[in-house]
Amino acid sequence: MEQIERTMKSEKVFDGKILSLRVDTVELPDKKYSKREVVEHDPAVAVVAADEDNNILLVKQYRKPVEKSLLEIPAGSLEIGENPKEGALRELKEETGYIAKDLEYITEFYSTPGFCTEKMYIFFADEIEESSQDLDEDEFIECIKVPLDKAVKMIEVGEIMDAKTIVGILMYKRLRGDK
Amino acid sequence: MEQIERTMKSEKVFDGKILSLRVDTVELPDKKYSKREVVEHDPAVAVVAADEDNNILLVKQYRKPVEKSLLEIPAGSLEIGENPKEGALRELKEETGYIAKDLEYITEFYSTPGFCTEKMYIFFADEIEESSQDLDEDEFIECIKVPLDKAVKMIEVGEIMDAKTIVGILMYKRLRGDK
Repeated sequence: MEQIERTMKSEKVFDGKILSLRVDTVELPDKKYSKREVVEHDPAVAVVAADEDNNILLVKQYRKPVEKSLLEIPAGSLEIGENPKEGALRELKEETGYIAKDLEYITEFYSTPGFCTEKMYIFFADEIEESSQDLDEDEFIECIKVPLDKAVKMIEVGEIMDAKTIVGILMYKRLRGDK
Repeated sequence: MEQIERTMKSEKVFDGKILSLRVDTVELPDKKYSKREVVEHDPAVAVVAADEDNNILLVKQYRKPVEKSLLEIPAGSLEIGENPKEGALRELKEETGYIAKDLEYITEFYSTPGFCTEKMYIFFADEIEESSQDLDEDEFIECIKVPLDKAVKMIEVGEIMDAKTIVGILMYKRLRGDK
């Protein structure tokens, strides 16, 4: 039986630049009420892009919420009217300066479905060509290349700590590790 | 060079039951100011628990933010004063009714470091024993067992869509797939 939680009341608490927040009053399966705090975030895309030698493109940027610089695959939120593939091509170009001939859709998942709406789409690109970065005004991003097997090792020893990057690289290793 | 973002001002916008929200004004490397919306969430733990036949314990629960029931590994936020291993043992017992003889720490990562502080710790348990569930008042959770290779397939076809569950199961497959 599908245990849905019916919304009895919904209160918008904050409406920001990259996210908003609402508190829903829901009816539980036992008919009691409870509150659900829900962060609303646009869908996002991320790209595992590899060159002909199976080096993966990673971007390093400071992440204020965790107060450190992290290594991540290129990613970002979809813009209005953009489909996931268009968004993925755009973010790859903006953050790494590389253009992909084509992108393959691999999977989609929820980043933190307990409290946030964000859905993340993962794409692979393995024919890429260098062009130029095109960063947002408040982005300071360095792009590096890491061999696939080294990237997997960096996940295992905790040097890569971003969830979408871990998912993307482990799936790339499973599906393209032997190319 | 480490590109830190210095906090010039920090405003608490919301203080809730499972998360809070603040807006920081930060100084960028070029000395300009920008705003960062930061969701504060307690550290959390998740457990890949397998029985002697390598069946993985999954829990199914309705997730209000995405308006659907998802299959996930047992997980939850740390309580005050609790270390990650204690929290993982507690959540495993509460959500699945299984007790682990021991837990092995595998890794930790940030769920969505672009806007949220949450750090997730992943543990493996492969000696488990059935006891009884002990759910929170507003939790309605069903526990099922899925063979490891089927769980991996469910990730690949999009039937498992929760990020921490994908990370946990893919790492389990890599590290324990052949036990």
